[in-house]
Formats: sequence, structure tokens, C-alpha cells
Amino acid sequence: MQHTFPLDAWCIRETSFDAASNFLDETLFALGNGYIGLRGTPEEGYAGSAGTSLDGTYLNGFYESEPIQYPENAYGLARNNQFMLNVPNAKGIALWLGEERFNLLQGSVESYERRLDFRTGLLERELVWQAPSGRRVALRSRRLVSFASKHLFAIEFTVTPLGFDGTLRFDCSVDGVVRNQEAGDDPRVGSATSGPALALVGNELAPHFAALQQRTHNSGFTLVSAAAQVLDAPHTLTQATERDGLRLVQSYRVAAQAGQAVRLVKYGCYYSSRDYAEDELMARARAELEAARGAGFDALAAQQAAYLADFWAQADVEVAGDDALQQGIRFNQFHLLQSVGRDGKTNISAKGVTGEGYEGHYFWDTEIYIFPFFLYNKPEIARKLLEYRYAGLPAARERARQMSHAKGALYPWRTIAGEECSAYFPAGTAQYHINADVAYSIKQYMDATGDDAYLLQYGAEILLETARIWLGIGSYNRAGDFVINEVTGPDEYTALVNNNYYTNAMARMHLQFAAAVGERIAREHPLEWARIAAAVALADGELEEFRHAAAAMLLPYDEVLGIHPQDDSFLDKKVWDFAGTPDDKYPLLLNYHPLVIYRHQVCKQADVVLALLLLGEQFTLEDKKRDFDYYEAVTTHDSSLSSCIFSIIASEVGYADKAYDYFMETARLDLDDTHGNTHYGVHTAAMAGTWLGVAYGFGGMRVVNGEVRFAPTLPKQWQHYQFRIHLHGSLLQVRVSAGGAQYTLLRGEGLSFRHRGEAVALSPAEPTKELA
Amino acid sequence: MQHTFPLDAWCIRETSFDAASNFLDETLFALGNGYIGLRGTPEEGYAGSAGTSLDGTYLNGFYESEPIQYPENAYGLARNNQFMLNVPNAKGIALWLGEERFNLLQGSVESYERRLDFRTGLLERELVWQAPSGRRVALRSRRLVSFASKHLFAIEFTVTPLGFDGTLRFDCSVDGVVRNQEAGDDPRVGSATSGPALALVGNELAPHFAALQQRTHNSGFTLVSAAAQVLDAPHTLTQATERDGLRLVQSYRVAAQAGQAVRLVKYGCYYSSRDYAEDELMARARAELEAARGAGFDALAAQQAAYLADFWAQADVEVAGDDALQQGIRFNQFHLLQSVGRDGKTNISAKGVTGEGYEGHYFWDTEIYIFPFFLYNKPEIARKLLEYRYAGLPAARERARQMSHAKGALYPWRTIAGEECSAYFPAGTAQYHINADVAYSIKQYMDATGDDAYLLQYGAEILLETARIWLGIGSYNRAGDFVINEVTGPDEYTALVNNNYYTNAMARMHLQFAAAVGERIAREHPLEWARIAAAVALADGELEEFRHAAAAMLLPYDEVLGIHPQDDSFLDKKVWDFAGTPDDKYPLLLNYHPLVIYRHQVCKQADVVLALLLLGEQFTLEDKKRDFDYYEAVTTHDSSLSSCIFSIIASEVGYADKAYDYFMETARLDLDDTHGNTHYGVHTAAMAGTWLGVAYGFGGMRVVNGEVRFAPTLPKQWQHYQFRIHLHGSLLQVRVSAGGAQYTLLRGEGLSFRHRGEAVALSPAEPTKELA
Repeated sequence: MQHTFPLDAWCIRETSFDAASNFLDETLFALGNGYIGLRGTPEEGYAGSAGTSLDGTYLNGFYESEPIQYPENAYGLARNNQFMLNVPNAKGIALWLGEERFNLLQGSVESYERRLDFRTGLLERELVWQAPSGRRVALRSRRLVSFASKHLFAIEFTVTPLGFDGTLRFDCSVDGVVRNQEAGDDPRVGSATSGPALALVGNELAPHFAALQQRTHNSGFTLVSAAAQVLDAPHTLTQATERDGLRLVQSYRVAAQAGQAVRLVKYGCYYSSRDYAEDELMARARAELEAARGAGFDALAAQQAAYLADFWAQADVEVAGDDALQQGIRFNQFHLLQSVGRDGKTNISAKGVTGEGYEGHYFWDTEIYIFPFFLYNKPEIARKLLEYRYAGLPAARERARQMSHAKGALYPWRTIAGEECSAYFPAGTAQYHINADVAYSIKQYMDATGDDAYLLQYGAEILLETARIWLGIGSYNRAGDFVINEVTGPDEYTALVNNNYYTNAMARMHLQFAAAVGERIAREHPLEWARIAAAVALADGELEEFRHAAAAMLLPYDEVLGIHPQDDSFLDKKVWDFAGTPDDKYPLLLNYHPLVIYRHQVCKQADVVLALLLLGEQFTLEDKKRDFDYYEAVTTHDSSLSSCIFSIIASEVGYADKAYDYFMETARLDLDDTHGNTHYGVHTAAMAGTWLGVAYGFGGMRVVNGEVRFAPTLPKQWQHYQFRIHLHGSLLQVRVSAGGAQYTLLRGEGLSFRHRGEAVALSPAEPTKELA
Repeated sequence: MQHTFPLDAWCIRETSFDAASNFLDETLFALGNGYIGLRGTPEEGYAGSAGTSLDGTYLNGFYESEPIQYPENAYGLARNNQFMLNVPNAKGIALWLGEERFNLLQGSVESYERRLDFRTGLLERELVWQAPSGRRVALRSRRLVSFASKHLFAIEFTVTPLGFDGTLRFDCSVDGVVRNQEAGDDPRVGSATSGPALALVGNELAPHFAALQQRTHNSGFTLVSAAAQVLDAPHTLTQATERDGLRLVQSYRVAAQAGQAVRLVKYGCYYSSRDYAEDELMARARAELEAARGAGFDALAAQQAAYLADFWAQADVEVAGDDALQQGIRFNQFHLLQSVGRDGKTNISAKGVTGEGYEGHYFWDTEIYIFPFFLYNKPEIARKLLEYRYAGLPAARERARQMSHAKGALYPWRTIAGEECSAYFPAGTAQYHINADVAYSIKQYMDATGDDAYLLQYGAEILLETARIWLGIGSYNRAGDFVINEVTGPDEYTALVNNNYYTNAMARMHLQFAAAVGERIAREHPLEWARIAAAVALADGELEEFRHAAAAMLLPYDEVLGIHPQDDSFLDKKVWDFAGTPDDKYPLLLNYHPLVIYRHQVCKQADVVLALLLLGEQFTLEDKKRDFDYYEAVTTHDSSLSSCIFSIIASEVGYADKAYDYFMETARLDLDDTHGNTHYGVHTAAMAGTWLGVAYGFGGMRVVNGEVRFAPTLPKQWQHYQFRIHLHGSLLQVRVSAGGAQYTLLRGEGLSFRHRGEAVALSPAEPTKELA
């Protein structure tokens, strides 16, 4: 399965219909607005064989819950799984030419183009199809999932008979006969839900309006899936409605004439009781669709384009010299925008809303990979992501109690609504670093925004509660070092180790930051501090305990190799036999028992190398180089979270070619399906990694003690590149070319930063500086 | 649930009927012969509420197989579970007095005794019951599961109307409406089979004969469960048969007279296609029952008593001075004999054939705990246990390949027929020490028997194949030590560690022994050696590799504490807060997440301390004392495998009181239900641990380089004790009293050993020696 698109800078586009790539294309051409996700399956459906399509519709944060069944149970294991549902398909439009159903797999396709445009946000199709009977039609469709209105999508579907007069029929459906994908042996794919997850509560059918009302069995949510149509045709013959259990169909018969376009616009929406009271849902859906019909498709399309124009004005990354890369970067940014929840109740899942891989769960991917992209490009969304974690604090407190921590909060390794859903704790709950990752995102946010209101209202409480866990899990060893045992670091090819370098280093940062924040609030906002300390029942001396543990934190260093061991025992293990491992044995996790992998020096992804980025000021350049060299030799990059980090550190230590190669692996990971599983959904963390690769990698951007530093380099393959960042209310553009770096203040009051150590200040009066 | 029995030396006996202890009594009064297991439920069934009875019938080694469903899958995880089935209940006899059904929970019980006699092997009941209507009957029943005939059991059921004449009805059933126990949250209980496991193939009903023929769905076995009756009554009115799906009933109506006994004898048998061709099963069952009817119950009872007389002549342990203990020891020995498979295809499961705990699986318990009991008391059964492991070699080779070992064989952590069934690998497959445990049992067997024929036919091949795994899993670290990473030792409160002391020490023994055996066979039996080497495709130099790895084996020692660390990181962990742990939080595994337990210094059971026993010659007494002291302080003995080992080492290091206390915890563990779960089945390993406690503990028996050593001590609570051991064809009695030790040659040509370092030889001419 692969697709090669023309190298357009602002869209992906296919110019011929290819059934072989359908499953993959459904992901690549998926539309979303952070809530609704519609896979790119055509309106008429896809009638290919099993395993060549997944006509999925997803709502970020809307989930069913099921008890997790363990073949061998133990105390405290995650009890329930939450998984994103494939909700009713409200986008269906079956087209009939007389008795012949429009189906690209039959007849012949005379001309064809499908295009997903990053500036309009529209998925468009234009084609001419000849039916097996010989009749020909031209079809043009446009689809959008509204950025302006969370619950709304719209489809314009225009059909023109070519050379014949006759009856056209449009069957517009809201189809609840959908199921979630079955999980196979690959732990990364789908959920194993046992049957239809949504029970019918009721439905409504009125002229041009159809809605299903359903309820989940266990999570207790109600959902309304609705659609409404407007038909623009000279002679509508009949309109009929039909219910068939979970499937509602509204049929329009039109006496069409050769050369005369028949235009159907279908509006769809989803409302659930996660957002509104159950008894309001149907009325809200009806009102939403009524308003959309009133506005019309073109108005919605204009809104969509305006939203995107604003987005690109803030976020666009330009690369001159590599069209494929330029396309890949913008594709990634566009999909990130489509995937991210922005209501404070939802987050961004590993596959966004494009597929069921990882069951719609949120991971640390958000904080460490995706958060910076939004922080610097669309900070209001970043804040919403932080609010999401605050909303999860009660569940994190409860989880901490289940894990026998008398105090504090432990975030779940994977979840939708806050409950731990990881069913394999050695690579799940054992990743205690999630707490530090959340703290790190708060630190980044504060560094970039100085938003004390956030800190006082939400952040401080999170920081204190999550920092406490380190004192619960860690202990002082015989030498007086603070050690953290029995955890799993980011590298999932090593599990349940002692003193994972990344974990310990991030825990130290976390403890120090929590103490510093606490001390500062106590000093600057004593009344607020009293409230916060009471809310978390802070005891005397707790901040000192944080400081003490941080100061004593064990951060191992191997004097012989001059590197930071990934954990206490990593260097005592045998190096994986890479030479003896054939290509088809990768990813290792699908070909070797976990014990075999865990026993060896082999990494799935950046671990120490990630610490080199996040805590870069704590390392010398020589350390970074040695660590990079050592870990590069034992890392498979079987995780999509790996290459971008290696690219960034390669840039920093001067390995320009490696930096470029690793970057290229990330930039088109989904577009070129290099991991072979994009049909299950895009890789949102790797997509954000592309942006990190540009800004942190080639741009050399770092934030140290609140100060932004750049040290840009230009890959020899490029003429120039540019990216933008929001900083304390200003918008900065960084443009790097052979001649040097150009910094431009695009919006705001001005800001200061360092360029290769040199202090730079921009202001509206002096908005641009060029530096070598 | 608890039962206090009179302290009879040769039986357990209850003298009043107590519904509250029924579930537990079903285990304690269970009968078995190593193949059939009948729980002690009365013939008439038990009509108490849910959870107060499990009327189970088990066949050792007869199992169903089901795919294991993991909520998060991974490569190489055990794919199928095998679990012992609750097979049709063929022992049922419902008694009716007119329209009133005999049921101890109604009416009143005027007198009552139930007795399980270790010398007759009979379970007997005598009682007088008054029905709610006022009618009274006397009942005497005797039940046996034949030691002489693997497939047979028999019940004599005698009823005497007291003070009335009337109709008695006996409904004799073969009841296939049975299910396995459902698994709950306790990982140690039951299997989660999803429904009835046996499908009906056919049945046969003839006068006095009834048989069900059934098939398992997945494992593909056929089973015949049959029963036949002989009624001895003055006036049989009618005999009727009835089939009701899976339930066959044969009814006998008798015109009974006051004071005249009516005697029914029911014979039952089980034949499965694990032993015989499918089409022979029915005929074999019929012939078996025909023969039994011909012989009669008294003849079978006489056979049973003779078998047991021979057993006790070899195996009896006598303790004078503690009647409770004496009873407990014999109870344990009797149940071991009832539980152990002896056909080379079966083994002894954790609960024998008395319950469904641990699903009828076989563990290392056999080799390390139970094997010595049979080796020294009934060596022909020990050899059968070794043959069982040889039969499992092909499956162990296959498992090694799944675990990416190019050579060698890896025994399953838990299994029935050889396939790995452990669904939680950190405390399952990771326990690689199983291979060394099997090797250790071969070494013990050779030391005690010198049976070279066994070694040449079976043992050498096992030793070589299993030893190879250490070279597959281990590696040389930077210092040149041979290290074994990512394993779990015996202590399941610590998982996935590097250089578990027990594992490394046992692996060294294993490698050395395999090399030595290979070298000796090559020298003494070159032709056999050629065959064996070819069978395992032994490469040049492999034995040298064994020697090299053994010599370089890392066996850590902590100079500061003067102890052997349980693994590389054990001492860096925080000691469990025992003072802060309330009693109701034990066992820890039911109250703390595995991560919490793994993170601490806390042991479920003997680990290093077990190595002190098995490899005792490698430690100084001072080492043993320090290790004992250290690990005693951090061990919860939540495993029933622990106390007996601590008792033995306490004896050795001179902690007489501790030795006695730990011993007492083991000796009546099931009789007093001290672990609170004996209703799910007896603890066979702990039962054998009692014998180890006497012989190895108080008797100070060790075998070092083939030489048997004794260093007996007498607990101050006892007047004397004695035990017997088979050694190289001779039978030795060791009797220890205040005056010293008396060694007596009971059978055989003579033998030599050491008593406290002094060489002793016994011969038929001089069969007894008394030593201080």
C-alpha cells in the first residue's frame, strides 16, 4: 500500500483512482476538526474486499468503556478500557443512475482527481464515470469538517449526466450499522470490543432531516448523529424516507437532464452528552443543521478558508529546495490541526481522529512531542491541552491511591477520560515519567507565555500533586542517593528498570520546578498560595523534601564510556545482534518475545537522547556527542517517536547529514507510509516531530531558564527555510538562508532572544534583524 | 472455614456434621490415586448455598485447551491454556425414603462420624438421620479410589431403616452437568473456561451399567465416564433408567424393612483417549466394571490396604511427642501419594487432584519440593516423574525456538501436557530456573540411585538440551563475568531482574553437571554418547562452553552486609514497610500492585535461602546464618513454598525454635487451613515440604557429591522421630531420640553414609548402629 502524490506545496492530490491504496488514502484524506473525524472514504462507500477499507467516523473523547479481562489477574491492574467508537456514518450518499449504482470499482473511470487542500480545508473530487451500461456522469464533491463549528460537517455532491436524460437517485443515509475494528496480534491496532457498542434509543425522520439517538452500554453517554439535505435540482420526482433498524435513509429521485448539474448538499452533525444535557441533544442537532442549511455550503467553505488563513499566518513552515518535504511538513501541520481537541475535555490521540490505532488514547506524546507545536504556533490550543490534564487530576489522584501512594497524583499512561487504560503495566503504568512530562509541558508553557493566571488556577496544583509521586516511588539508597526503582523509561524495549536516566533527570527537573513555583507563589501571591496549599493539603517541609530529593537524585554516568547509561543495568546487557537480524524481523516487537528484547541493549526509541534535548543545558556538547554515538548504534527507531529526536541532536552535535536523514524519515512518515501502518491512522507525535526537527533541530531553538536561544543551520539540500513562533504575546518569524538568519517580529510588542549566544531584541520600531 | 479434628495418628475424623466447613472438608476428605480425584462431597450431593461446595471430579492430565486472550498482546506470549476439567460426577447416589430425599441439611443428624483412614485408604461415614417426617435411617458408606487400578473407584452405601418399613429409592447417577469453577480476582484460583467443556458424543445405558461418552472441543480428547451397581437387598421392586441430556440415572426401588440393611455397591471408572484408542474406551470401561463387580467391594478394600501397608513400610515418618504434628505429617504423605501421577505422562499438580486452584498445572514444585519425597520414599514414582519431563522435551524445544533460542529446550513454567501455559510472563516464562530445577532433580536421582540406564536413555538428553539455554540467555559482561539478565527467580515478589542469585547458582550447577555427565558418558559409554550427541546435534566444544560459562558465572556477594544479594539491584531497593502494613494486607499480592511490590525489598518466599539448601556445600555456616537473618526479615512467606525451607536452614544454623515454628507452619497448613484457601485444594508442595523439614531439617540430611550426610537434632518438644529413605536399592531407617541417632538397614544389601562427618556403613550382617 503506497501512494505517490504530485509534489504540490499546499495539497495532496491523486489524479487517478487506485483501489490498491484505498485503505491508506482513507487516512491521508481524512478530515477533522479536533472533535469530528471523517476518514476519506467516498460518500458512496467503498465496496472493496475485506481489509481494504475502514469507513470510520470518530468523535474525539467520545468513548465506550469495557472491563479489561486479564488471563492472569493482579491487584491494581487497570480495570477498564476506554476506547474511541466508530460512530454512525452520517456522510453516506449512494448515487443511482436508474438501476445502476455508482461504484468506482465497476464501469470505468474516465477522469479523476481527488485533492485535500491545506488552505481551503476541503476534500474535493472531480471525476467522470462510465457505468457498465454505458451511461456517463460527471461528479464533483466537496467535503469539509468545520473548524468554526465543532459539531458540524458538510458535503456538496454535484452530479451531471453526460449525454443522457434519466432518473438519478440519491440515498442519503445516517448509518448506525458500524463496528469498531477488531484487534489482531499487533498490540498497536484497534480495540477488541465485543460487539456493537451503541444501543438505539430513538430516531427522528422528517423531510430532509434524519437523526439516530443512541446510548453506550457502559460509559453511559448518549449520542445524536444527524444529517439534513438540500437538493438543488430542476425536477425532484419523489422524496422518501426509510428506517431499517440502525440505518436511516432519505431518498431523492430526480429527473435529470443531460448536461444539467444536480447539486445535493448534505449537512451532518454529532452531539453527545459528554458536552450537553441528554435532552438537549436532538434540538441542538436540529438547530445546528437548520443554521447550516441557512448559511449554505459556500459560506461554510469561506469560514473554513478564513480559519486556515489565520492558522497558516501563524504556523506556516516554509522550506525551499525540497518540494516533497515542503508538502510533507504542511500535510503534518494540517493534520495536527485537524486532530487536536481544544475544549479542555479532550486531547490529541496517537492517531488523531483518523483511525482506531491505540484506541483513541492520549499518551505522553502530547506533552513531549505535540504540545510545543501548539504552544509556539497556536498557544490557545496549548492551554486547552493543559486544562485537559487539570480535568484529569481527580482520576490521577485516585490512581495514585490504587498504586499505594498515600499522597499525590499519578497520570495514566494511556486514557481518554482520565482512567488508566494500559493493560500491560510494564510498558504502561510503569512509565511513571508521564508525571514529569506533564510538568515539563507546564514549564514550557510558563516559559513561553508567563501566564501566571494559569499557574495559579491550575498549574501549581498539578505540579505539586504530581511531584509528590517521586517521593512516594523513590527512596534513598545506602549511599544516600535518591533512586527511582522499577520504572520503565520512554524506550519500551527496556522495561522495569532502576534509575532510568530519563526518568530520574526529568523527576529532578520536576521536583525543582515544583519547589520553585511553590516558593515563588508563596512569596508573590500569599493568598493564592494558602488556597493552593490547602487544596493539596501540603504539609510543612514538603517543598524542602522536593529540593532534597532533587539534589540527591542519582544520575548515573559511565566513566569508561563517557556516556549516561540508560539505566542501572543497561550496559551490563548484551548488545543486540543487529548484523544477524534480517530486515523482515523489524519492528522487533512483532518478532521477538519481550523477554528477548528486554535482555539486550536495544532501544525502540530515543531515551537518554531525548533527555539531551529536553534538559540540554545539563550536558556538555562532548557528552551529547558520545551519548548520541552510543545510543544511535543500539536504536532501531521502531517507534515513530524516535527519528525526530535523533535528528535534532544530530543537528546540535554537528552531524548535518544524519540530521537531514533522520528528519526526512519523520517528515513524510505518513505520506509515504514508511512504517506501513498509516492505514490505521496518522502518527500525530511524529507529525509534530517534524516541526520540532525544523525549529529545535535546524533552527537550534532551545528555551533555557525562560530565555529563547537559536543556533540555526541550513541543510545543504535547501535554499532557505522559515518558521514562526509565538512568544509572550508576540509572533516571531525565523528565516534561515545561506546568508544567515533573518528574525522578524510579525505581531506584538516585541521580544528578545539569543542568536548563537548574542542577545537580540525586536520591537515594532525595529522589527527585523539579519544575523550571520 | 476451619476444622478441628481429633488428633488421631492414622486418620482424620469428624464426629459431628458441620455445614460451615463443607467446602474445606471436600478437599481434606478427597480421595485420589494419582489419576482420579474425587472431592469429599457426599454421595447424595451437597445442597448448601453457592460457594459452600465444589463437587469436583478430576483426572490428572486430562485437560481442555483454550486460546489465552491478552488485553495487550505481544509476540511469543503463551498462546493456549491447558486446564484440568471437572469431569462427570459418577459417584452420585441420591437416597429417597418414600418421597423424602436424604439431605443432611434438613431433618436432624442424630449421630455422625466421617473418617479418612491413611492405612485403609477408605473414606467412611456412619450416621443416623431423622427425616423431617420423623423417619429414621442409619447410613454407612465406604469409598475408595483404587491404588491398584488407575481407572477405578468404588462406593459401598448401606442403609438401614430404623423403626419403619417402607420404600427406599436409590438414584445412581453419572452426571455430566458439571462446570469448572470460575476464576475471580485471585490469580491463584480456578480457570476461566467459558462454558461446558465436554460435548456429548453418546451414552450407554444397560441394566446396572451407565456410561457417558464425551469429547473436549479443543484438546481433542474423548472420555468415557461409567458406573455400575450391585444391589444387595431382600426385595427389589423396580429398576429404571433415565437419560436427561448429560445426566444418566439408574433408580432402584426397594421394599425395605425396619432393621434390615440394604447395601448398594457402586463402581465407577474413567477412561480417556489420552491413554487408549478412542474406540476401545467403552469396552474397557465395561470390562473394568465387570471385573470390579466380580471382585466385590471387600476385595478392592483389601487390595487398597495392602498397597498402603507397603507404602507406609517405606515412607512412614513417626514423631513422638506431638499428636497434631504426627497426624499432619501422615495426612500430607497420604495426600501426596493420592495426588502424584505415575504413568510417565502425568505429574503432580499444585493442588493434586483435589481442586482446581492453579488449573491442574505442574510447576517446579515437583522437582524442588515433591520429587525428593518420592525419590527417597517410593523411587519408582520419582522415576516416572522424570520420564514425564522427557516426554515434554519436544514441546520444550519448540518453546525455546519461540523464545528465539536457536538451540536447546526451555521447559514451561506451568503446563499439563508440555505447552507453556503461563499467561503472565514476568512471573512465568521469565522463571528460567525451571530448567536448572529439572536438572537438579536428575542429579538428585542419580545420586540416590546410580541409575545409569535412566541417564543414557533419557537424562543426558534433557541435561544437554536444557543446559544450552543458559548460553542462549546469558552473556559475558564487560568484566568477563557470565551474567544472566532479565529473569525472575523463585521469589515472585521480585521480577525481571539481572543475576538472580538462585538462578545463577543453579545454572552453574546445571552447566557443570551437564558437562560432567557428558564427559563421563563419552568416556564410559562411547557408543551411547555418539547416539546422544547426534540426537541433540551437539557441536564441538559445547561442553567446554558449559564449563567456561559456569566458571565465569557471576555470583554476587555484598561485602558490607556479608550476604548474597538476591539479584543485582535487590539491596538498592527500599525495605518494605512491614511495621506499617496491617495484617489484613497479606498476602501482599492481593493488596498491592505488582510494581509496588517489585519496587521493594520484600520476598514472597525463600530464594537465596533455597539456594542455601540445594547448594549447601557452597556456603559457610556463617554465610548461611547471615543470609538467613537478612532474608528472614524481608520475607512474608505469602507462598506456601517458603516456611519449610526456612525451617530447614534454621535447623542448620542452630535456630532450633525458629526451625520448629516454621516447620509447624508447614506441617498442618492444609489441615488447619492456615492459608485460608485449602477449600480450593491441598498444597502439595508444602505437604512435601513437611517431609523435607523432617529429613533435611531436623535430620540434617544432605547429599554432597553423591554422599549422604546426616546431622540430626531433636526438637525439644519431641521424644523421638524417625523417617526412612531409599538409597541405591536399600531402605534405611533413621530414628532420632534424646539418646542419639539409630540407623537401621531395613531392606537391601547395605549402604554407607556420614553421621556428623563420621563414616557409617550398614550391612545385613550389621544392620543397626546407634550414634550420639
